[in-house]
Amino acid sequence: MLKLHGFNASNYVNMVKFVLLEKDVSFEQVTLYPAQEDAVLAVSPMGKVPVLETDQGHLCETSVILEYLDDTTDGPAFYPADPFQRARVKELAKLVELYIELPARRCYPEVFFGGQVSDETKEQTREALLKGIRALNRVADFSPYLAGDQLSAADALFLYSADLAKAVAGKLFGLDLLAEAPGSAELLKQLNERDSARKVAADRDAAMEKFLKYARGGK
Amino acid sequence: MLKLHGFNASNYVNMVKFVLLEKDVSFEQVTLYPAQEDAVLAVSPMGKVPVLETDQGHLCETSVILEYLDDTTDGPAFYPADPFQRARVKELAKLVELYIELPARRCYPEVFFGGQVSDETKEQTREALLKGIRALNRVADFSPYLAGDQLSAADALFLYSADLAKAVAGKLFGLDLLAEAPGSAELLKQLNERDSARKVAADRDAAMEKFLKYARGGK
Repeated sequence: MLKLHGFNASNYVNMVKFVLLEKDVSFEQVTLYPAQEDAVLAVSPMGKVPVLETDQGHLCETSVILEYLDDTTDGPAFYPADPFQRARVKELAKLVELYIELPARRCYPEVFFGGQVSDETKEQTREALLKGIRALNRVADFSPYLAGDQLSAADALFLYSADLAKAVAGKLFGLDLLAEAPGSAELLKQLNERDSARKVAADRDAAMEKFLKYARGGK
Repeated sequence: MLKLHGFNASNYVNMVKFVLLEKDVSFEQVTLYPAQEDAVLAVSPMGKVPVLETDQGHLCETSVILEYLDDTTDGPAFYPADPFQRARVKELAKLVELYIELPARRCYPEVFFGGQVSDETKEQTREALLKGIRALNRVADFSPYLAGDQLSAADALFLYSADLAKAVAGKLFGLDLLAEAPGSAELLKQLNERDSARKVAADRDAAMEKFLKYARGGK
């Protein structure tokens, strides 16, 4: 059986978990926190989660895992079969990851974990988030999903990136980030109402206290 | 015919161009510099290059373009057919992009374009590059290619990332980055000796003066 290594408060773990639940694929969860220790680095070269353990070995990087799941499991496809539409979903997913999630992530230490980030980082994050959400607004359909009327991998990345980026922009910059992309707030709400997202959120909330203790404790 | 929009000094454009040449796919090049102007944003939501123009529309993001090319054109495959091996190539490619190219890129303004980056950025880049190259060392085969004995998309990303990251590490930190991953310097040398890489390099060198003028002039 597939094993998903990670922890329930990780937004990247939750992207994969959401898709596994949507596809109704059997999987087992194994608790793993990011670390630079040999045991972790042996299954995850950057010491990050999620890690998908398959019969053939371990895979890292959420988008890689999601594409692998589409190639190897049943259930609804998260990437269209048509090569151009398929590429478009990958482009949207990458846009969310590189230009919204990753910039916002630089400020998570201050917004969520009681730490502090520099003014330089904040200014870079502010600019990057505005650029990212406006780029998403240019290419996403929001009808209702990012790539049209079919739920796709891009939505899974969006679901667990947009809420955190919105929190960063609101708390640090007084910005309503999702207002820059009309339809995005409605999509986030709608995605969060799915059964799979409710399950992910319940598990996340239950895991949060332990995770915050870990995150604020250093490492 | 496919049109590759970008400019010959861009390392991401050259990843795509290298693969197009290796596959012997007909394509036309259209000069496009990154910009936040409407005409550019209409074909590239982040105002970045490369952009691949297809009969169905424009695609951005190098890894997305490379996967699309494998799905739609003839010539040697840059992603294996087996889903796990395919995922592994994608993981290696993403590792090179996110954890080697992108950190190094933050210091390009100082190393290549006569600008200056902050000490904070330099320290973050140094740490990130060491982490990235050590991660690559953990999972890459270098036998001789990143994913074994077949040239793959991961090598295309490596070819036009490793040289720049090496320059950043050497110039700013006095570090021999590729020494952290035995086999990587030999791979880089071998890749650069391919006919397609020689053609890309000749075009790059011819375009460099104009590009440096553009890069140092602002924008």
